[in-house]
Amino acid sequence: MIIDGKKIAEEILAEIAEEVKKSAKSLKLAAVLVGDDADSRRFLELKQKVAERVGVGFKLYEFPAEITTQKLRKEIVGIAKAGVNDGVIIELPLPKHINTQYILNAIPEEKDPDVLSQKSQGAFFVGKSAILPPAVEAVKIILGKNNIDIKGKNCSVFGYGILVGKPVSHWLAQEGATVSIINEFTPNPERYALTADIIVSGVGKPNLIKDDMIKAGAVVIDFAKDVDFENITHKASLITPPTGGVGPIVTVSVLKNLLKLLKND
Amino acid sequence: MIIDGKKIAEEILAEIAEEVKKSAKSLKLAAVLVGDDADSRRFLELKQKVAERVGVGFKLYEFPAEITTQKLRKEIVGIAKAGVNDGVIIELPLPKHINTQYILNAIPEEKDPDVLSQKSQGAFFVGKSAILPPAVEAVKIILGKNNIDIKGKNCSVFGYGILVGKPVSHWLAQEGATVSIINEFTPNPERYALTADIIVSGVGKPNLIKDDMIKAGAVVIDFAKDVDFENITHKASLITPPTGGVGPIVTVSVLKNLLKLLKND
Repeated sequence: MIIDGKKIAEEILAEIAEEVKKSAKSLKLAAVLVGDDADSRRFLELKQKVAERVGVGFKLYEFPAEITTQKLRKEIVGIAKAGVNDGVIIELPLPKHINTQYILNAIPEEKDPDVLSQKSQGAFFVGKSAILPPAVEAVKIILGKNNIDIKGKNCSVFGYGILVGKPVSHWLAQEGATVSIINEFTPNPERYALTADIIVSGVGKPNLIKDDMIKAGAVVIDFAKDVDFENITHKASLITPPTGGVGPIVTVSVLKNLLKLLKND
Repeated sequence: MIIDGKKIAEEILAEIAEEVKKSAKSLKLAAVLVGDDADSRRFLELKQKVAERVGVGFKLYEFPAEITTQKLRKEIVGIAKAGVNDGVIIELPLPKHINTQYILNAIPEEKDPDVLSQKSQGAFFVGKSAILPPAVEAVKIILGKNNIDIKGKNCSVFGYGILVGKPVSHWLAQEGATVSIINEFTPNPERYALTADIIVSGVGKPNLIKDDMIKAGAVVIDFAKDVDFENITHKASLITPPTGGVGPIVTVSVLKNLLKLLKND
């Protein structure tokens, strides 16, 4: 079955819209774009569209690619301090010369729906976070909607990045799955993937995961267009398509987190 | 080869003793024991012996098993605040009714050589900690002393506990290893272990890892007496014995961390 991420996202958006309506205060999400990467801009435009549809204000702050870490940090501190901004998201990756974690740490935990500051990640890794990183929330939603019990499942996670691999592999392990973390240095990734009940991928390398690497009936959640979708669809029991798959669920998870953080205040 | 943990620990202790001598200030480690578990007491006595040998003062604070979380938290806050205490360690596990992470969070990052508070773990998980959790430091020392490159290695980590499995699996993945996290629900752990170049175990279940589960030439680091040592020794290229193995290296790593934290101040 192909997972209809758009449909799942719409269901969650309807719930969010209801909650936003009930909220006494008007909500605003601040988004930061550094440089002018076309993909980053497109992702933020999608987030803006979705936020505004459910009545959440969205303000884009743009900075040139050449900005220094110190200057950017100061800007983010200001954006995060502004009472009008209820949450701050920074589109990654940042330019290479920027100290990314230092920048992310300028977002206080209660305004960090992406769960990326050191404090937010710390809370997540010790099991004390009120919200889950959006990629984890998306995996949880997909598995939950399909009544897939995680405990005892074999999982292969491709990549160990800050947005997908690291948080998702930790969460799956914490939930009782057997988790294999696969990276670019893994000599034979198929050895893990071939027996995996659940494959999660967040690498960004087209056709990294081919049909002869997965077992029949596997669940395939592809965050980064790593999967040879055309040839794998028939084999997987559940699979996210490259478009309208996990992406829309991640986007609404950011908004869901924003609301949860406000309720926690 | 059987890893002589005592010998490695002695080498590190000699370095620590030198540093302590050079230090202007006399150092003290505060240790907390809740209840009267014989193993916990023995571990703390070992830590005390080693600390005092290198000239680090050691003070044991004991509390009854029935103490409440709130009362214990207050006590730890006091112990951590005392200027005389340069570091605070809490012997785990705590009694079941205690909120362990909440207690650990009472230790400020700069006095947390075990890297167990939420803040310390957060720093470790984002790669911003000045020190490594003692179990990770021990693995790093053992692999380093034997010139074993982690990148591209297949690793099986048994258990996902706060002291061993969780930090070690994260660190190995971050260093570029392929990491499989195995738990009690894993249907066939040998499928992972049999191809592992490095096995790390922190479960506490004797004979969990048997000789027919490891490949010839594997490196076996056993934190919790999980390994059928007698029958595996001949097969492993490197193995920690159940006594005088990784334990003494973990203990000196706590002292090494204490010194590093003071230098960072």
